[in-house]
Amino acid sequence: MVSEFQFIENIKSQYSVEKIGDDCAVLPKDSVTDLLLTADMLVEDIDFRLDWTTPEFLGHKALAVSLSDIAAMGGEPKWAMLSIGIPTNVWNTRFIDRFYEGWFTLARQHGVELVGGDVSRSPDKIILDSIVGGEAPKGKAILRSRAKPGDSIYVTGFLGGAAGGLMLLESGSRAKNSNKTQKELINRQLRPIPQITIGKQLLTLGLPSAMIDISDGLSSDLEHICRPSGVGARLEAKYLPVDANLGELAMTDKERTGLAINGGEDFELLFTSHTKEISPAIIPGIHHIGEVTANTEIIEIVDGGKSSILPFRGYRHF
Amino acid sequence: MVSEFQFIENIKSQYSVEKIGDDCAVLPKDSVTDLLLTADMLVEDIDFRLDWTTPEFLGHKALAVSLSDIAAMGGEPKWAMLSIGIPTNVWNTRFIDRFYEGWFTLARQHGVELVGGDVSRSPDKIILDSIVGGEAPKGKAILRSRAKPGDSIYVTGFLGGAAGGLMLLESGSRAKNSNKTQKELINRQLRPIPQITIGKQLLTLGLPSAMIDISDGLSSDLEHICRPSGVGARLEAKYLPVDANLGELAMTDKERTGLAINGGEDFELLFTSHTKEISPAIIPGIHHIGEVTANTEIIEIVDGGKSSILPFRGYRHF
Repeated sequence: MVSEFQFIENIKSQYSVEKIGDDCAVLPKDSVTDLLLTADMLVEDIDFRLDWTTPEFLGHKALAVSLSDIAAMGGEPKWAMLSIGIPTNVWNTRFIDRFYEGWFTLARQHGVELVGGDVSRSPDKIILDSIVGGEAPKGKAILRSRAKPGDSIYVTGFLGGAAGGLMLLESGSRAKNSNKTQKELINRQLRPIPQITIGKQLLTLGLPSAMIDISDGLSSDLEHICRPSGVGARLEAKYLPVDANLGELAMTDKERTGLAINGGEDFELLFTSHTKEISPAIIPGIHHIGEVTANTEIIEIVDGGKSSILPFRGYRHF
Repeated sequence: MVSEFQFIENIKSQYSVEKIGDDCAVLPKDSVTDLLLTADMLVEDIDFRLDWTTPEFLGHKALAVSLSDIAAMGGEPKWAMLSIGIPTNVWNTRFIDRFYEGWFTLARQHGVELVGGDVSRSPDKIILDSIVGGEAPKGKAILRSRAKPGDSIYVTGFLGGAAGGLMLLESGSRAKNSNKTQKELINRQLRPIPQITIGKQLLTLGLPSAMIDISDGLSSDLEHICRPSGVGARLEAKYLPVDANLGELAMTDKERTGLAINGGEDFELLFTSHTKEISPAIIPGIHHIGEVTANTEIIEIVDGGKSSILPFRGYRHF
């Protein structure tokens, strides 16, 4: 079966589509500003389950995943559209009002204006398509394709928490009957925080050579920088910022590191930079996790002095 | 049950949303241009059926409905995004390649560039969200809210054909075993033509005071001009441009006129204008169908000298 990544590559080459392949499309807006555009579809029982979340959290997440794409370009979100397909039995509940409460609470925090969208009936599942427009200074949006051998690799925050939250939900845990640590993991999964402020700061400081948000998982998303940049990467296992809350889960340290490497939806930022060290005094919470190499599309991981090739195990729809 | 129109009104007033309520949102782009934005969701078995259409026609229609929204502002389409949710069994066929063939054929005709979107898995139905961005000269995009009492009401082309095509499809007819007239009706439903050229021409000539595309049906869409404009309308039944192909269907003239009034998806343009007559030498194929009145939100129809109030019977999702 062809993966969605391969399919998109086919469409790009068949129809000479140039603007697809980054977290956002970059289009000229005016003489000093570029327009950033992103769309994310979330489908019930594929991307979310109603018995795991609340309508407010779902409204938050629908917007957050697109804001994270703007953050990954170093951009500032400006406006949004929201298309919703909704079954009649859900339409007749308070679901949609509560969904919009969550959506607007996050939108207000980032000064995002709702400017359009669509409301449609669907046969049985809730469908959400989140569209966000943002801005970046002309020519300055941070692409995936500019990583250079010798650059350092950094990640914001901690990894694996959202995947840990997903494991808890899949094993039957719910926020309301969980302890504080479990609840934090579940919230990482259901109510992700887009790294808009850090993304903009990184752009302003001119630090990243390439950047992406961690939605599919570190291993996949690092590959999405390496391939278009024509480079490879070497990660140091001991530097990976494994979410401390994963200590709550009954698993080995190796399994926790596995969640940090392959678990998706942390919505942290992964970037490369010519700068060898980023002081916490400049931007706190940035972790140096490896180096860019000239081994095109090969991602190695060094663990206890032993190097191995990292397979891409991030999330795929197909 | 609250209708989607009422729901959108509620969201607008609760969250002070100002840019929603027209065919497109209008945002400032640069010193001489406004950006137009529209999104349209199409859901399998609600908005289309796979056994009625072809993948190529569906790709065409997904884009056409959004281009029609740009046309309704007098704008020029520039770029598009497309989010697709697709079940695994459909993913493994040629459906999606053929769908994109239809999409790109129409996109090329209008110089529209695909710049983004999303590909997602869905449990069982195909879901399409079509997003189009366009441009209009600053402050010149034609809104729904500027009709004035005394303005004339016009419509491009002929009405009721798409609804006639839908009736044929619902009664079991398919394009391949239909005669030429039936096939033309079915094509009106499955492969609508967005009126981009006429929309732009109308804007350039400064003719419309208000404009909308006929997607839900003339009676509903005229109400969507009357309500925000704070006006009413009087239509002349004898002037309604009923699609001649409807002669093919076994129904009375009154029923054919009913299809022209309440049938949706013709994607013609409905507009009001201070100009009393539009010569075919300037723009061919424009029909004068009535007048704007001061009877706020009352739409009358005059038939054989007898006037009656027109109920809104256009398409509603809820």
